[in-house]
Amino acid sequence: MTDLARTGTVFGVGLGPGNPDLMSVKADRLIRSARHVAYFRKVGKAGLARSIVSGMLPPDTVEFPMEYPVTTEIALSDPAYNASLAPFYAECVAHLTALVRSGEDVVVLCEGDPFFYGSFMHLHARLEGLVPVEVLPATTGMSGAWTATGQPITWGDDVLTVLMATLPEPELARRMADTDALVVMKIGRNMDRVRRALATAGKLETAFVVEYATMPNQRVTRLVDMAEGVTPYFTIVLLHGQGRRP
Amino acid sequence: MTDLARTGTVFGVGLGPGNPDLMSVKADRLIRSARHVAYFRKVGKAGLARSIVSGMLPPDTVEFPMEYPVTTEIALSDPAYNASLAPFYAECVAHLTALVRSGEDVVVLCEGDPFFYGSFMHLHARLEGLVPVEVLPATTGMSGAWTATGQPITWGDDVLTVLMATLPEPELARRMADTDALVVMKIGRNMDRVRRALATAGKLETAFVVEYATMPNQRVTRLVDMAEGVTPYFTIVLLHGQGRRP
Repeated sequence: MTDLARTGTVFGVGLGPGNPDLMSVKADRLIRSARHVAYFRKVGKAGLARSIVSGMLPPDTVEFPMEYPVTTEIALSDPAYNASLAPFYAECVAHLTALVRSGEDVVVLCEGDPFFYGSFMHLHARLEGLVPVEVLPATTGMSGAWTATGQPITWGDDVLTVLMATLPEPELARRMADTDALVVMKIGRNMDRVRRALATAGKLETAFVVEYATMPNQRVTRLVDMAEGVTPYFTIVLLHGQGRRP
Repeated sequence: MTDLARTGTVFGVGLGPGNPDLMSVKADRLIRSARHVAYFRKVGKAGLARSIVSGMLPPDTVEFPMEYPVTTEIALSDPAYNASLAPFYAECVAHLTALVRSGEDVVVLCEGDPFFYGSFMHLHARLEGLVPVEVLPATTGMSGAWTATGQPITWGDDVLTVLMATLPEPELARRMADTDALVVMKIGRNMDRVRRALATAGKLETAFVVEYATMPNQRVTRLVDMAEGVTPYFTIVLLHGQGRRP
């Protein structure tokens, strides 16, 4: 039932690293009672966010899959990339705004933490000032990954650096050399570059690779024991800090 | 009822940034059914971890407060610091190990994410190999903090650096200048040093301070608008990345 007397809210709900048991109590509650959900995915794919909440949505929930018109086919630096995404985001925002103004709440499903390299941020920036938006922080994929290794990521005064594997190799190597603890995300097709940069930094031997952290197919490997040059998008490479420990 | 036929488990349970609604579904379940809980605190204080679960523990839960013999009275670099903590950790581990070997599960309450600058790590390193230990990742305090500012911390290829305010001022300034997004933790009495280092890095104007993120007394301030030189221990200073945004 739509309540015309009120405006709804867009909830940007962080789902955490993938295991539904690691979702927050509030995320769980919002999802299990959602009348409207929205989520990003590639055309032809189920989408990770949607698959994490599999079995949790009420049977009559209305779904709004937001399917990227392009993803990796066009280089991020190509002006065609933004040109293609701008109308797509505009359509998503128009749809969500109309729902919320009709009094409905909409739960936008977000992998990891919405404000940490999340795709929801592109909606958030466009929804701000138009309709009420509430963001729920969540456990990041990197927390899931370092917990999977069974070792703390940081001790004492350790410096932690988070890098995207899409950065130029010399910059990766320089920053890898100049940190105590390290997280590298957006690995995908960039694994060989990450490997070379770690070797240049003298840290290849101690690096770990975590795939599908907290999910049933979770795999933790020392990078030197891994042959693959291409890995799942949500793969994380990390180095543990070795700081002060009483 | 103690089951002598089995060995229990020590659960290192991340509680998240402070709002119990942001605790994971699994953390919530373990805490609400806990027969034994343990948590660190200063002598004479309730302890933040314990206060986060206020009202959630079953009435017959047995509590084991682990009270630090020293905290800020002795410098971390003073050998007396480790000398004082070693027997304390040994006592805690002896107590937890005995419980678990008698068949009990023990929930250790941990602020934030246990493997991210957490006090639980010092128990974990000592419990490993003695008894089963399971660690639950959680939403970090920093996720709570950047969400409180209403702006994403990182976009596109932004580099995120996490620093402890206890580092030397020149190192803080150098690393603050050389990052896109920044999180500074363990502020406490080091606020003036953080302020000076940010000024040296040319980034004082854009820094935010978040106190008690996600809790009822949450406060978000621009650093330039804040007069205090000493802040609560869990205060976080941050700079938002300004990376690529289609």
